[in-house]
Amino acid sequence: MPKIKFTIITLFQDALRPYLDVSMMWKAKDKGIAEFDFVDLREFGLGPHKSVDDTPYGGGDGMLLRCEPVFAAIESVKSKDPSAKVIIPTPAGDTWSQPMAENFATKGGHYIILCPHYEGYDERILSIVDYKISLGKYVLTGGELPALIMVDSIVRLIPGVLGGETSALVESFSDGDNIEYPQYTKPYDFRGMTVPDILLSGNHSEIKKWRSEHSQKSA
Amino acid sequence: MPKIKFTIITLFQDALRPYLDVSMMWKAKDKGIAEFDFVDLREFGLGPHKSVDDTPYGGGDGMLLRCEPVFAAIESVKSKDPSAKVIIPTPAGDTWSQPMAENFATKGGHYIILCPHYEGYDERILSIVDYKISLGKYVLTGGELPALIMVDSIVRLIPGVLGGETSALVESFSDGDNIEYPQYTKPYDFRGMTVPDILLSGNHSEIKKWRSEHSQKSA
Repeated sequence: MPKIKFTIITLFQDALRPYLDVSMMWKAKDKGIAEFDFVDLREFGLGPHKSVDDTPYGGGDGMLLRCEPVFAAIESVKSKDPSAKVIIPTPAGDTWSQPMAENFATKGGHYIILCPHYEGYDERILSIVDYKISLGKYVLTGGELPALIMVDSIVRLIPGVLGGETSALVESFSDGDNIEYPQYTKPYDFRGMTVPDILLSGNHSEIKKWRSEHSQKSA
Repeated sequence: MPKIKFTIITLFQDALRPYLDVSMMWKAKDKGIAEFDFVDLREFGLGPHKSVDDTPYGGGDGMLLRCEPVFAAIESVKSKDPSAKVIIPTPAGDTWSQPMAENFATKGGHYIILCPHYEGYDERILSIVDYKISLGKYVLTGGELPALIMVDSIVRLIPGVLGGETSALVESFSDGDNIEYPQYTKPYDFRGMTVPDILLSGNHSEIKKWRSEHSQKSA
């Protein structure tokens, strides 16, 4: 059993899958820590055109996801795993944050992420949703990128994914992730720009002090 | 000439490209409104292993992007288009927002997005960067998803991409995007959950009033 599983319900799985096949997400999958699955919402569409959306009651631009295909898709996953929780990315949700990612990484479990596309979704869909999450104060074409953002920020925190002795979960509770200080690597001199000498001193307490003085809190 | 062009510098272009080949991003490309290009950072790597990163001076976990490959990659783009501006996604940057997306969509131009991966980058890289942008208060494996978020949220705002008479740019300055009210589509009755009757009344001023009363500001 993986520590965490995500089932992403979308119309665009071919656009999302490649991201989960490289780097840390691939590593997490390869190690059996995380599992990623997709459900094609189109399969649950209505009529000969497998339609998944329709115009809004009361007027307005764009199309809304209909209840029937969404409920059917979610229920097809829940029928195999009733414990699965449903997440929807939506501008009206709670703003995604590092503590929220840590919370999901610690709990683990099976999460179904429903990706709305274009204009929106029928409000009644929220009756089957456990978590409403907003990625930030901007509008996107759909919920696909928010789904990947959530998956990435959660999975990398699970011990064993980043490797090494210290997990990202430990690291981000100390001073690793949330404070940004200037970092330098080789070469010492790049086009006349040199590395601050203190960082080459080997004096760990002075280095720590310098980094603290030059830290900028994440925006 | 497209209205806007993005050149994404990354180690993982195969993971990103498919997203730009579907839906609105494909449409923007197909209409000649937006152009997407990739530069493989690895091609500018050092030595037989085409290395792009190294350990931090002064100690610390992880690897940092080195200056040489990054500058070479950026300069390869700028040599063909000196007007291109450089964007780096970084937790210490300005927080991405709808007004920022609107600003880029209005200005147009050519933007190089550098995607750091894993732990970070050599501070001197910022000397060649025009915009530092943070996507939110969470940590990701790399800058790849932030790059796609920026591209998506900008491109969909350019007139002609969403189609129809009204552009998203107009829409989002009025009340279309930033205020969330419950929306409903067919069927009227779904498992006993019905659409509020006011929305079927045809009374536009009452519908507008209802939507205003039921609006939730985006988080």
